[in-house]
Amino acid sequence: MKLYSYWRSTTSYRVRIVLNLKGFSYETIPVDLVAGEQRAPDYVALNPGKGVPTLALKDGRVLTQSLAIIDYLDATIPDPPLLPADPFKRAQVQAAVHTIAMDIHPVNNLKVTTHLKTRYGLTAEDGIEWFRHWMTEGFHAYQALLAENSTFSFGERPDLADICLVAQLYNAHRWGVDMNPFPRLLEIEERALAHPAFDAARPENQPDAP
Amino acid sequence: MKLYSYWRSTTSYRVRIVLNLKGFSYETIPVDLVAGEQRAPDYVALNPGKGVPTLALKDGRVLTQSLAIIDYLDATIPDPPLLPADPFKRAQVQAAVHTIAMDIHPVNNLKVTTHLKTRYGLTAEDGIEWFRHWMTEGFHAYQALLAENSTFSFGERPDLADICLVAQLYNAHRWGVDMNPFPRLLEIEERALAHPAFDAARPENQPDAP
Repeated sequence: MKLYSYWRSTTSYRVRIVLNLKGFSYETIPVDLVAGEQRAPDYVALNPGKGVPTLALKDGRVLTQSLAIIDYLDATIPDPPLLPADPFKRAQVQAAVHTIAMDIHPVNNLKVTTHLKTRYGLTAEDGIEWFRHWMTEGFHAYQALLAENSTFSFGERPDLADICLVAQLYNAHRWGVDMNPFPRLLEIEERALAHPAFDAARPENQPDAP
Repeated sequence: MKLYSYWRSTTSYRVRIVLNLKGFSYETIPVDLVAGEQRAPDYVALNPGKGVPTLALKDGRVLTQSLAIIDYLDATIPDPPLLPADPFKRAQVQAAVHTIAMDIHPVNNLKVTTHLKTRYGLTAEDGIEWFRHWMTEGFHAYQALLAENSTFSFGERPDLADICLVAQLYNAHRWGVDMNPFPRLLEIEERALAHPAFDAARPENQPDAP
């Protein structure tokens, strides 16, 4: 498999964790988002959304959108499971997943903040404030959805919610979000990053990291 | 079941279509987003993300996030299926779903455009341009992901991608997106809205529509 990925992309980070947890071997093909490589015609033919990640299977078929890729990987190698089997518990975990994957990440996507700056004149400082605002709002909602007294967000092993959380927290630290209201999220992050599958997926451990 | 819903919310619209397709009976509890009812403490206790929809089950348990709710409903009444059984095809449909549910909808959410206006001084016209920009970008990507020559986005019956598309197109028409580049999307919309489950879910057919 080939994973088209950018080291700092949190959606790429999610997929890397899953590839590692499931034991898939894969090759990283870096796509430099800052240089605009996601808009090159050859890449857009693979990923019309002009984003990362993109997963190319061994047979050449291609998948886009991080959570769709993860759904495929989870179906292909079911162990360890990323979501509970019980439909209600599964939906609870997915609600937390989507609090990050829909309420935070898309609004803070690089293309959105770039558009805010180039089209509406927001400054670099405005952009940082923008990032912090949506992460703070989203983390409050996420923390309210968590199970009580579990080791990870919902259970005793990391699941898809933890995977999305750890990736998003990378951005939170990068942009200086005040994490004092969210001690539980930092505890979960520390436990998850102690796992080799999470550690190997960290942005700084990628081949395109500077 | 009780669905906390706002007539014009496209995420509520998605869930209404699924409830109708699967034959669930439910009561609509209107949440007036324009009046700010989603920020009332009693509602935030149900939905810490301060959004719609929220689904309260008969036993009082509560689910949030439209696609998590839909996942639960699909598991509870599997017929008609909303996603293909084959893992690769399933991920392809989900990539299209997420092109709308992640790349368009969250960026165009009411709370985002309100924040742009109150915090950064964007005008009402800027807001409309903002809506159109992200829908146009997203529809190009969506159209590129479609199956060739299928009646709906991916098959001969409407699936989760069509459900998200129809709901998003309500906003596209509302905000005057130029749909000339997207004839296939309009054909799918027309076919889907001919289905009673889609028709009954239309914003204008809701109890809180003016």
